[in-house]
Amino acid sequence: MNWEDYLSANQNRFVEELRDLVRIPSVSAKPEHMPDVEAAGEWVVTRLKAAGAENVAMYPTAGHPVVYGDWLHAGADKPTVLLYGHFDVQPAEPFDLWDTPPFEAALRDDRIYGRGASDDKGGMMTPIIAAEALLKTTGKLPVNVKFFFEGQEEIGSPTLAPFINANSKMLKADMIISADGGQWSETEPNLLLGLKGLVGCEVTVTGARSDLHSGMHGGGVANALHGLSQIIAELKGRDGRINVPGFYEDVIDLTVEDREAIARAPFDESEYIDELGVPDVFGEEGYSTRENLWARPTLEINGLWGGYQGGGIKTVLPREAKAKITCRLVANQTPDKIYALLKAHIESLTPKGLRVSVERLPGNADPFLVPNGHNATAAVNEVLKEVYGRDPYIVRTGGSIPVMTLLLKELGVHGAVMAFGLDDENIHAPNEFYRLSSYRNGQIAYCKLLERLGA
Amino acid sequence: MNWEDYLSANQNRFVEELRDLVRIPSVSAKPEHMPDVEAAGEWVVTRLKAAGAENVAMYPTAGHPVVYGDWLHAGADKPTVLLYGHFDVQPAEPFDLWDTPPFEAALRDDRIYGRGASDDKGGMMTPIIAAEALLKTTGKLPVNVKFFFEGQEEIGSPTLAPFINANSKMLKADMIISADGGQWSETEPNLLLGLKGLVGCEVTVTGARSDLHSGMHGGGVANALHGLSQIIAELKGRDGRINVPGFYEDVIDLTVEDREAIARAPFDESEYIDELGVPDVFGEEGYSTRENLWARPTLEINGLWGGYQGGGIKTVLPREAKAKITCRLVANQTPDKIYALLKAHIESLTPKGLRVSVERLPGNADPFLVPNGHNATAAVNEVLKEVYGRDPYIVRTGGSIPVMTLLLKELGVHGAVMAFGLDDENIHAPNEFYRLSSYRNGQIAYCKLLERLGA
Repeated sequence: MNWEDYLSANQNRFVEELRDLVRIPSVSAKPEHMPDVEAAGEWVVTRLKAAGAENVAMYPTAGHPVVYGDWLHAGADKPTVLLYGHFDVQPAEPFDLWDTPPFEAALRDDRIYGRGASDDKGGMMTPIIAAEALLKTTGKLPVNVKFFFEGQEEIGSPTLAPFINANSKMLKADMIISADGGQWSETEPNLLLGLKGLVGCEVTVTGARSDLHSGMHGGGVANALHGLSQIIAELKGRDGRINVPGFYEDVIDLTVEDREAIARAPFDESEYIDELGVPDVFGEEGYSTRENLWARPTLEINGLWGGYQGGGIKTVLPREAKAKITCRLVANQTPDKIYALLKAHIESLTPKGLRVSVERLPGNADPFLVPNGHNATAAVNEVLKEVYGRDPYIVRTGGSIPVMTLLLKELGVHGAVMAFGLDDENIHAPNEFYRLSSYRNGQIAYCKLLERLGA
Repeated sequence: MNWEDYLSANQNRFVEELRDLVRIPSVSAKPEHMPDVEAAGEWVVTRLKAAGAENVAMYPTAGHPVVYGDWLHAGADKPTVLLYGHFDVQPAEPFDLWDTPPFEAALRDDRIYGRGASDDKGGMMTPIIAAEALLKTTGKLPVNVKFFFEGQEEIGSPTLAPFINANSKMLKADMIISADGGQWSETEPNLLLGLKGLVGCEVTVTGARSDLHSGMHGGGVANALHGLSQIIAELKGRDGRINVPGFYEDVIDLTVEDREAIARAPFDESEYIDELGVPDVFGEEGYSTRENLWARPTLEINGLWGGYQGGGIKTVLPREAKAKITCRLVANQTPDKIYALLKAHIESLTPKGLRVSVERLPGNADPFLVPNGHNATAAVNEVLKEVYGRDPYIVRTGGSIPVMTLLLKELGVHGAVMAFGLDDENIHAPNEFYRLSSYRNGQIAYCKLLERLGA
């Protein structure tokens, strides 16, 4: 049996395995789900062993655990390839907007619906299955392989750096391939050259010692929610420009060639508007929507709350207001500098009668740009061309994969991305799903990639 | 036994009765507490009957019920006095800031701690007890009395007007006295001449059809929380002035005499700051803090929320943001006009790429100003002078008692307020309490008031 037939013959099992994994609510952002993240890691350990990987173990970090396994018998003349993915997921709130429960892993229309199905449990399973198919049908792999899967990607991999640093010998590789990412469409591939970085903060605005009666104290003291709104309104103008002094200082401006490459990838703005259900696009003036999405830094309010959120009316003057704010960064912005600028600016906007404090959120990522002519990227390019029958689009994305930067820093290797999630799969939102067609294609592509890298 | 002795002899029972009533979580704002509001009404029915009132019954309205009872045997030459109070309470959230549970009615330091103890269950009990003391010791009341207690004051009495209108004959009275309100201090009385009105709205800002990944869509579409913050920031300037066009149009400016009367009531701004724990006062420029609190209209954000409010980081671009906004009005602003101005202005501020909708919140009140030389107010003035041994301060308040305006409209009678809550009793906030000394004083004052009105 060749590996293609092996994949076909075992596909039903692979689907049920992915559903099993999606059913584990491994939400890394929530302390109460720590045991679930661990359970997902244990599940991956078992699965890797079944695939034929060796030295498989779960390792603790200062936060969530990682899973490592390898197969290193291809010979010293063959490259060693580190395959990356993550088994943690985003929180599933708001639950009531899901058509089927987020951790049920419902199967319909050749898709699995569930939190993490696309990001990244479906992706992470792909190289494991490819390795199994090659090992079970040929008895070996064409290259030396190291599997490295983490459980904290969705919170920005805050405790991964010291682990990689302490285990750099174990993780050492000639190439890194990430199974976290996506493709252009079901029929068109892309090659990812740029990722945005990330830094975030939580802002707390406080007024009185306790909530007050708005009739007794309205007009006498400042309103924390109003003050926080004033601060946030001043962070970004109606022109979409971020007003934090120094924010754009280190941004590498797009060249004419960059803008041409971005413009080559198809983009229908009115389709984009329809798809999301927004009345219009909105971004930094002077740049196309695609340029803003891919290559300009952003500042977003991820959450804001204070006062009464229940039904009807409550005439309270709330004592406290909070907001979570994250910035997506582009080369050569750094999380440390942007955080310092943001914090200083927010504090400078403190309204009369209120106190403002800013705290850094866990999770950072430097922006990431792949150099021209990079070996793993070239191999991925060829595989995608073969699998899809056409050249991939050269793209960037606003998403962050902090581990790519970490691995570059600690191991000195630029990663390449080969992953099969699609933009419409509601990742980080209700009704996330993963196409089983992508799941099958991904398995084939990873088999081909390992063969090509070993040739 | 005279009524003074009767009050003393039965005081322990009166305290336990008030604790019983506070233990009923009659939160009118929350649908799940509807049965509790009804239970509180039933409790009041039983208590009124025990006091000797006649024709006691609970009546349904389109919302929460009301309780009515009377004693009309003083004779046709005696005035009929309507005594008002309410048995519903504010929501008790946030529960974790209470030292003892809000519906436990803990007794300590000669105080009852619990939601509604001061506002207005303690106040509402006072005239019932006074009538009981007079009836049990003299066999009659000096005036004809009608008790009228409602269960929807804390949500702005939205369905009370049609009830009063349909039952105006039953409620007809020569004078109205409200047992909902407060005094200056434990030793200084006040006479309330002005109440602020109230109108509120809920603003909803929506962007995309669902929450989005801030990396994938940040820079491409507008952020609902950012847009809502921009709108709110523009509603009131850093000078405390409300920027809604036409907002101040109908406001009767304070005269020199008004400002002198307000200045006569003692106010220590730095003490106010210390008491609330704020870094500074904040109000409309050009007016003293006391003038802002008592006699200038306000706009407050009572609640604002959207996106992720949990622990850690979630890089979501939220689809929806909501805010609850209420304005306190002064004569001659009207809720209808202010709502229309506010709605139009908010809609005019709709940010690019977002949708904005404004809905009116239930509950309105017109501002209320007592005319000079008003009979019931004069009687209350004399009783307070006698009980406290000094002239009351002439005051206004930022609070609303919608029923006062309703009763004026429907029955043609201006109400006077005689109530004993104090400003530090945390009404509408955690750790609300009521002083048992106020409870006892109130009972005496109501006996004296009924006697004086009958003389």
